[in-house]
Amino acid sequence: MSSWNGNHQRIYMNEVGPRDGLQAEAAFVPTAEKISLVNALSRTGLNKIEVTAFVSAQAIPALRDAEIVMREIERAPGVKYAALVPNARGAERAIDGHADELNLVMSASESHNLSNLRMTREQSYRSLQQVSRLADAVKIPVNISLSCAFGCPMEGDVSEETVLEWSSRFIEETGAHGVTLCDTTGMAYPGQVARLTELFARRWPGIELTLHFHNTRGMGLANVLAAIDSGASRFDASVGGIGGCPYAPGASGNVCSEEIVHALELMGYDTGVNLEALTLASTRLPSLLGHDIPSQIVKAGRRLDLHPAPPDLPAIRERAVNRERLPETRR
Amino acid sequence: MSSWNGNHQRIYMNEVGPRDGLQAEAAFVPTAEKISLVNALSRTGLNKIEVTAFVSAQAIPALRDAEIVMREIERAPGVKYAALVPNARGAERAIDGHADELNLVMSASESHNLSNLRMTREQSYRSLQQVSRLADAVKIPVNISLSCAFGCPMEGDVSEETVLEWSSRFIEETGAHGVTLCDTTGMAYPGQVARLTELFARRWPGIELTLHFHNTRGMGLANVLAAIDSGASRFDASVGGIGGCPYAPGASGNVCSEEIVHALELMGYDTGVNLEALTLASTRLPSLLGHDIPSQIVKAGRRLDLHPAPPDLPAIRERAVNRERLPETRR
Repeated sequence: MSSWNGNHQRIYMNEVGPRDGLQAEAAFVPTAEKISLVNALSRTGLNKIEVTAFVSAQAIPALRDAEIVMREIERAPGVKYAALVPNARGAERAIDGHADELNLVMSASESHNLSNLRMTREQSYRSLQQVSRLADAVKIPVNISLSCAFGCPMEGDVSEETVLEWSSRFIEETGAHGVTLCDTTGMAYPGQVARLTELFARRWPGIELTLHFHNTRGMGLANVLAAIDSGASRFDASVGGIGGCPYAPGASGNVCSEEIVHALELMGYDTGVNLEALTLASTRLPSLLGHDIPSQIVKAGRRLDLHPAPPDLPAIRERAVNRERLPETRR
Repeated sequence: MSSWNGNHQRIYMNEVGPRDGLQAEAAFVPTAEKISLVNALSRTGLNKIEVTAFVSAQAIPALRDAEIVMREIERAPGVKYAALVPNARGAERAIDGHADELNLVMSASESHNLSNLRMTREQSYRSLQQVSRLADAVKIPVNISLSCAFGCPMEGDVSEETVLEWSSRFIEETGAHGVTLCDTTGMAYPGQVARLTELFARRWPGIELTLHFHNTRGMGLANVLAAIDSGASRFDASVGGIGGCPYAPGASGNVCSEEIVHALELMGYDTGVNLEALTLASTRLPSLLGHDIPSQIVKAGRRLDLHPAPPDLPAIRERAVNRERLPETRR
């Protein structure tokens, strides 16, 4: 199987922590800290960073400083700075803020779309078509994130046909540049991911396909590997593993950026990311957020971050060897 | 890639929670509770259960009741009841207790063996040869668990040659029935697992090969899938994900039995395990142990354990649809 050995294949990491992670925080993260986090992430070699969301300050007060953050970050060459946009008003703000890409969201599940966005999927689609036209007019690429592409926590399975049909409308009618298939509540499993990724990649080889997984049931990395094996090379992940979904009790966060990079680099994939710099950025999160973070790399270190042997190891060895030199007795 | 679709391949689950998990607990788990846990696990369809360890009560007081537990459990037909045995004295006790299999442990790393067992690897090997002879005399199969087979937290990489050489001595000189390659501190990664598993499985197709992974750096399930893809079908796992290693700070527990079964069954593998019964056994652990457990399945439920839609969903839909019926205005 090829995907156990990356053989230098390029994998593109899209960091969603500053938006998807911070929007879930109960306490407001100071604007200067947000900027500083994005700046630290900018210097790690990530391909894209979803910086913030241009949503109403009433709906998501945690990101009420979207304009300032977007304006004040230092943009590193080669990094794309995206913003989530729910509607035309948000698109205008993101365009004013010189976002490199607009990320539009709707759900493949009717119940989830109604719960989360208070619209039917048809209404969301028409609204996002409007948004796309605004972006097209100023030549900013649009990505569509389809929530619940691997299952809905209220409805259960979401069919491949449904996911491909909504993808098709955005790609073929609306001209989207990229599609993200989102496992919003951690229902995706590797067999399913492999099938859907292959169907998508075969049908639209020219479209940027991104996969967005949660580690809710411990399948995050396995899903990433199944997707790579089936033709994907772009992944959303969140520094520290921060973030979650308010509509799915128990659903833990996004897959953790440094865990995915750590595993993929060991396997010989080329993520372009400096793992040490990324982990350093993550290490600051617990004190910034006031709580522990899921990152196993922050907790346990990288694979070859070694621990000192016990100081008495030479003495242990000597005693063990000396026992050998004694005449054989029943030990 | 075949391993994303299990196609009914049989996978054998070896439950190590009662030994590997409970031995790490600070507070003594009452004997009756241990017996009750093993009895609950016995009814889930697991292939093998490592019930306890016949070690000195001074060394591991948590398992000082090994004799009683081994004697009092109700043995289910078809389930193998194994015991960990460090030396000849332990083997005699396990044989008296009618263990179905003796699990012997040494480390592939000299530093880890000295730290953990206070012997050189050569000394451990000769001691375990003695133990094997005792087991052979009463026709009880012996399994060798090689710790640090994927890396040592003190030495770093452990070469494939080293692991295969110790495996060879146990298999070809000592006549071991099975070998477990243990990722004692979560250093294994999928590419490495695929290579070592393939080398082992090709060289010794008749030997029962088991893989023992920790989820320390989030790679547990991916390692299981890499091993399956390379010829393995037997895995250690721990109910609730309990257990760890005292010689590796930050090293979190064994891969979680119900997480592995949940993922493998979704993918179409046949583990023989009733996931609901296994999860029920795990659900009792937090109150039994007095602390939270790593299991994501206990926290988040299975993939299709759905959540109710918001009670006002019909009203949300009605309002959304009614907005449609109004004359088009700028919304």
